[in-house]
Amino acid sequence: MVKLNSNYGNLKESYLFAGIARRIREYKEANPSADIIRLSIGDVTRPLAPQVVNALQKASQEMGSAETFRGYGDEQGYGFLQEAIRNYYKTQAGVELEASEIFISDGAKSDLGNFTDMFDTDNTVLIPDPVYPVYVDSNIMNGRKIVFIEGNEANGFLPLPDENTKGDIIYLCSPNNPTGAVYTKEQLKVWVDFAIKNGSVILFDAAYEAFITDPNLPRSIFEVEGAKSCAVEFCSLSKTAGFTGTRCGYTVVPKGIQINGVSLNKMWLRRQTTKFNGTAYIIQRGAEAVFTPEGYAGCLENINYYRENAKIIASTLDRIGIWYTGGVNSPYIWLKCGMDSWDFFDLLLKEANVAGTPGSGFGKCGEGYFRLTAFNTREKTLEAMARIEKVFANLKKSN
Amino acid sequence: MVKLNSNYGNLKESYLFAGIARRIREYKEANPSADIIRLSIGDVTRPLAPQVVNALQKASQEMGSAETFRGYGDEQGYGFLQEAIRNYYKTQAGVELEASEIFISDGAKSDLGNFTDMFDTDNTVLIPDPVYPVYVDSNIMNGRKIVFIEGNEANGFLPLPDENTKGDIIYLCSPNNPTGAVYTKEQLKVWVDFAIKNGSVILFDAAYEAFITDPNLPRSIFEVEGAKSCAVEFCSLSKTAGFTGTRCGYTVVPKGIQINGVSLNKMWLRRQTTKFNGTAYIIQRGAEAVFTPEGYAGCLENINYYRENAKIIASTLDRIGIWYTGGVNSPYIWLKCGMDSWDFFDLLLKEANVAGTPGSGFGKCGEGYFRLTAFNTREKTLEAMARIEKVFANLKKSN
Repeated sequence: MVKLNSNYGNLKESYLFAGIARRIREYKEANPSADIIRLSIGDVTRPLAPQVVNALQKASQEMGSAETFRGYGDEQGYGFLQEAIRNYYKTQAGVELEASEIFISDGAKSDLGNFTDMFDTDNTVLIPDPVYPVYVDSNIMNGRKIVFIEGNEANGFLPLPDENTKGDIIYLCSPNNPTGAVYTKEQLKVWVDFAIKNGSVILFDAAYEAFITDPNLPRSIFEVEGAKSCAVEFCSLSKTAGFTGTRCGYTVVPKGIQINGVSLNKMWLRRQTTKFNGTAYIIQRGAEAVFTPEGYAGCLENINYYRENAKIIASTLDRIGIWYTGGVNSPYIWLKCGMDSWDFFDLLLKEANVAGTPGSGFGKCGEGYFRLTAFNTREKTLEAMARIEKVFANLKKSN
Repeated sequence: MVKLNSNYGNLKESYLFAGIARRIREYKEANPSADIIRLSIGDVTRPLAPQVVNALQKASQEMGSAETFRGYGDEQGYGFLQEAIRNYYKTQAGVELEASEIFISDGAKSDLGNFTDMFDTDNTVLIPDPVYPVYVDSNIMNGRKIVFIEGNEANGFLPLPDENTKGDIIYLCSPNNPTGAVYTKEQLKVWVDFAIKNGSVILFDAAYEAFITDPNLPRSIFEVEGAKSCAVEFCSLSKTAGFTGTRCGYTVVPKGIQINGVSLNKMWLRRQTTKFNGTAYIIQRGAEAVFTPEGYAGCLENINYYRENAKIIASTLDRIGIWYTGGVNSPYIWLKCGMDSWDFFDLLLKEANVAGTPGSGFGKCGEGYFRLTAFNTREKTLEAMARIEKVFANLKKSN
């Protein structure tokens, strides 16, 4: 008789986005004329850069001719894309990598989930709270012990380890989803030193690195000394280049990570060559175009569009006098509601016809906070923030 | 201190294809003028059908315009492709499925590897020998007990369970890689009955189903009564439509599989929504085109090209008088060498300048056998078989 993986029974159903959709639907049914603006979306809306579209079309054409057709590629990705990313790291972050430390995939979510294969069940996993739910769920599926480190107003949602902190596998996300907060190099150094001292591995999610504008903030954990001996970095073109529906990411596993003489890079290569068959050639050619000067300029136009939206949201909150993190160096704005997250959701929906995401959906420490995103159109973002400002002006008057 | 997954230490390095490459290289160095023909390749060579290329290009164009841009799709795939596949099952195999039983992915190798997540470590895995190495390695990575069921000349490399057979998770591949042998409906019924009786789950790899020409042979395990309560089917467009470098597959998890009240379909949905983010929209549109009448006709042209190659190989072996399986209903021909697999490899390489794959690389029971594939060009396949025929004619003369 087959036995199922019983750890799946310990997963909690996430009702966050389903819950948001239901409340919006119910409100809309009761108020059919309401023009609801969603600042809850975590998905891009701008089209792919023309350079990327051209590359996708050219590669599609190549697949239609025997002379240029491509069959199986290496599971870890084509050399042309590994080289393009190697060069990106060098120019954007001053980080030197070997091409064989870069693994191309269909996205950071897959790699973050699958990377848990590398580790024994018997490890303590340290995860910041609030957090992107995939870290938690992937480890529950393997039955690992999970402990949380608290993000809060006092630490600006950038928790650091102290003498009581324990964790064999440490997840960090910077710029953070959902808080938009970004670790400084000095703060990341604290984490790297902690990992080296304790023999831990850091799984660093850098999916939002392209949103960083402050040149003093690290875009890669490998800008920090020692990180190449303890950290794996997960990157994505989803937000950098609008690839949420085009699916391409990359994971850097430095050869310097050796655990009891075993190379994590070699283990991941073995995992990927066994359980993965590479990312589509066409998509890898599209991704390559992102890293050309013209292609990156095209992607930056979109990023700058979202950055401007974030600025509009942040400056409105500044005027109202609401505390928040993010808004700069990030497409997310994480604000303090001054009330229960879901009550604030209902307030905004009812009074401003604006939908956001209750912070409590990202963990216990998210209670009392609320996430807005910069991914809607300029017009709707402006309109949404004007409405919110008016709501708060009225609240002030009535107080 | 982090602990790695120690099961990886039990994986054997596969030197099969590396070993083939090395021997060819060495032979070529010693004999620079040798024109070596590779009938060892397991990868397609014909370009994508024009209907598929058109769909890929159109979808690429859509991604470049705000009105038609697509962000995240459902992890389990777009409805348009699930529907196309549902219809394919109905018309090609007479099998009725629900769209939500069909999960789109980047390929069967990923799904076959990742599906092991569903099961407890404490299960006995039953795998035919010889076999595609991914089944074995994926389960070694999880530390499961693996037992083999022997394929041989007597059972035509189509082993069936008897009263001593044990297995909680059963891998079957039909048409088989590497043997090209295809189970009849009656034989699959024996496996389905065995699985139902023992509470086992069958993981059925149908990657080569499109090569079946005999209308009496099942193209899906779901043609067999009862299979929907015990079998998961893994399919791929790699060989059906030349998608080895384009990456799209699908896995059917029937809602009828309930293990102690737990739905395997729901578990796989949870796995995919947590650790996967869907297949590229562009690629799914290309895949959709495969299932249109015109697109499938275009793909069939390529399949028929390979089928003709297989026929050329098989009829040559018939004339020589060599025992084999496959050659029809499959792109593979599995022949009895009458000697050690690697000795036969060296003989063919030296005497005919033809490279194949030693059967011993697919498992203990492959020793003494040899795989040829139908994926080279017509010209090279004809030339290779003419050379092999001559070698055997000379061997006969000299005996």
